[in-house]
Amino acid sequence: MKKFAIVLAGCGVFDGAEIHEATLTMLSIKKQGADYVVFAPDIPQYHVINHVTGEEMPEKRNVLVESARIARGNIKPLSDFIADDFDALIFPGGFGAAKNLCDFAFKGPDCTINAEVESSVRAIADQGKPIGALCISPVIMAKIFGEVDLTIGQDPGTSEAIENMGANHVMAGHGDVVVDKERNLFTTPCYMLDAAIVQIADSTDNIVKAMLESMND
Amino acid sequence: MKKFAIVLAGCGVFDGAEIHEATLTMLSIKKQGADYVVFAPDIPQYHVINHVTGEEMPEKRNVLVESARIARGNIKPLSDFIADDFDALIFPGGFGAAKNLCDFAFKGPDCTINAEVESSVRAIADQGKPIGALCISPVIMAKIFGEVDLTIGQDPGTSEAIENMGANHVMAGHGDVVVDKERNLFTTPCYMLDAAIVQIADSTDNIVKAMLESMND
Repeated sequence: MKKFAIVLAGCGVFDGAEIHEATLTMLSIKKQGADYVVFAPDIPQYHVINHVTGEEMPEKRNVLVESARIARGNIKPLSDFIADDFDALIFPGGFGAAKNLCDFAFKGPDCTINAEVESSVRAIADQGKPIGALCISPVIMAKIFGEVDLTIGQDPGTSEAIENMGANHVMAGHGDVVVDKERNLFTTPCYMLDAAIVQIADSTDNIVKAMLESMND
Repeated sequence: MKKFAIVLAGCGVFDGAEIHEATLTMLSIKKQGADYVVFAPDIPQYHVINHVTGEEMPEKRNVLVESARIARGNIKPLSDFIADDFDALIFPGGFGAAKNLCDFAFKGPDCTINAEVESSVRAIADQGKPIGALCISPVIMAKIFGEVDLTIGQDPGTSEAIENMGANHVMAGHGDVVVDKERNLFTTPCYMLDAAIVQIADSTDNIVKAMLESMND
């Protein structure tokens, strides 16, 4: 049975992992006969956003502890990730990917990637195993890999920032998966487009299917 | 287009709404051509549980504000619920249903139901419209309706408490939906059984399908 490592960035679209993308990634993996383990870095969230008002709250939360809500407690610190134990690595989206796993939301192309995130991505890539990135999380791959084909959908500002990191942004629509065969990188826009939850389910099905098929090539 | 009101109880299985059940309820409704609006009571959570350790955290959180994470900000206070505007009412599970929407987790059959929850349920029931309850949330219906057929799966302690509230507990397995035709009440066990996420998706598909079909009877 093929095993995915899923990396979460908190719990909630505005300051953490996007919940529908994370949940539906899990469902797509299991539906297609594979399995997963959930990871998150044990670090403070950049901030906490009230998801009703959009305003910052005077609180401190931890990325691992909040991600555990989506994982129902079945989660490991990303420091425990060992590439040998997995067939693939996948990152759901949400602002947390750009605020907690890196600081792209604040620094754009000059962003820094969390050290554990970068070493996990490089370890899987060094073994030639597929990496998936949904929604905004492809910015992490643009920063790490530079020259690579990927998509965050159609947003002009974000795609320009991605090009400024040396990557090639490919325009994509609902459910599309952009594949960089050389890097074995799979990306899909999800809620970076104005999407409904049914389209997120299509996207997670499609990206997981493409990643699993790549393992048979 | 048929419209469901979804009532959430926070964000996270141990102190709020179960995230997979909530997300997959949304997906099942949209997949089957219906629509939804998400509600939650604007009240303090009973407590905050660290989902890694299972221990209580010295924090205060609000049920509406945390539920908004699952709803991506598209949520209304339950005080705004008007039964005339909806065709059905549905409650995903998670401990929050038994800690925030009522206090069954602490008082068992002697529990009290949140006043807005009770008035919403009674208003929909008075109009003969279907009510769905997943996982542990059928305890709310047992307390409100008394004599009614429902399921929380197979847990002996919880089913005994349900019988003590005057309801008839029906044993059920993965994906099963127990229907009380007189009350137009639909229940399914979800994570009250030792379930995988694929089985939750089956359960939410099945309960939404049964509720939609009941509207055509």
